Amino acid sequence: MPLAWGSGMSTPQDVLGTNAAFYAVFADGDVTMMERLWASASEVSCLHPGWPPVFGRDQVLDSWRLILEQPPPIVAGDPRVMQFGDTAVVVCQERVGGMMLAATNIFVREDGVWKLVHRQATRLPELVPPRWAMH
Amino acid sequence: MPLAWGSGMSTPQDVLGTNAAFYAVFADGDVTMMERLWASASEVSCLHPGWPPVFGRDQVLDSWRLILEQPPPIVAGDPRVMQFGDTAVVVCQERVGGMMLAATNIFVREDGVWKLVHRQATRLPELVPPRWAMH
Repeated sequence: MPLAWGSGMSTPQDVLGTNAAFYAVFADGDVTMMERLWASASEVSCLHPGWPPVFGRDQVLDSWRLILEQPPPIVAGDPRVMQFGDTAVVVCQERVGGMMLAATNIFVREDGVWKLVHRQATRLPELVPPRWAMH
Repeated sequence: MPLAWGSGMSTPQDVLGTNAAFYAVFADGDVTMMERLWASASEVSCLHPGWPPVFGRDQVLDSWRLILEQPPPIVAGDPRVMQFGDTAVVVCQERVGGMMLAATNIFVREDGVWKLVHRQATRLPELVPPRWAMH
């Protein structure tokens, strides 16, 4: 299966923009924007660090409302996009204070707009030296 | 975007079968079968627990050769499939001895066969009581 770069609105840049928006919204603690970032017509789930798996839009958004009561100072770096048609996977690293994590963020296109359908983040060993970007 | 259940060879059962095969191959330490399970025409990456991100088929398969030198007694349970056309995401739990993890396994169809393109596993808190199945 070849990659589908640049077909209409499905360019890698679009996905990276949505991924960056996710981290801005996360750090800002913006519940309304977080609700918009998650898919509404597709199944969603989330594996927050240290949480059991969360399934379903209502449950995932409930988990975000809880987390965003005290939003962490999160920044992301080194994003890499793998695009498979209308699905895209962004693998990136995250820094929350002195803690580093690796994340998988999965997006699907709904009405031409990339929306989150799943996310997992894992704490990384201390020795990894990523190149950090402000979103 | 609606889910694409049951279109040709892309039924949820097929993906679950491939996901189960992955864990059998993992526990058996079968490098040749592991190479077949990973996509060859699509980009691949892997976030092994405690590792920095691994990108590219050669690097991912190198990481598996290292890991499968001492295959862990891994079993998986509670698989949940989210299918988006020719891409499928399986969220499941894993047990390795007394350690429990949550995993995201991402598959794409290549020539009608589901192949792994990405995987991330995260250690879970001790208190999660999953229902375990032998693959």
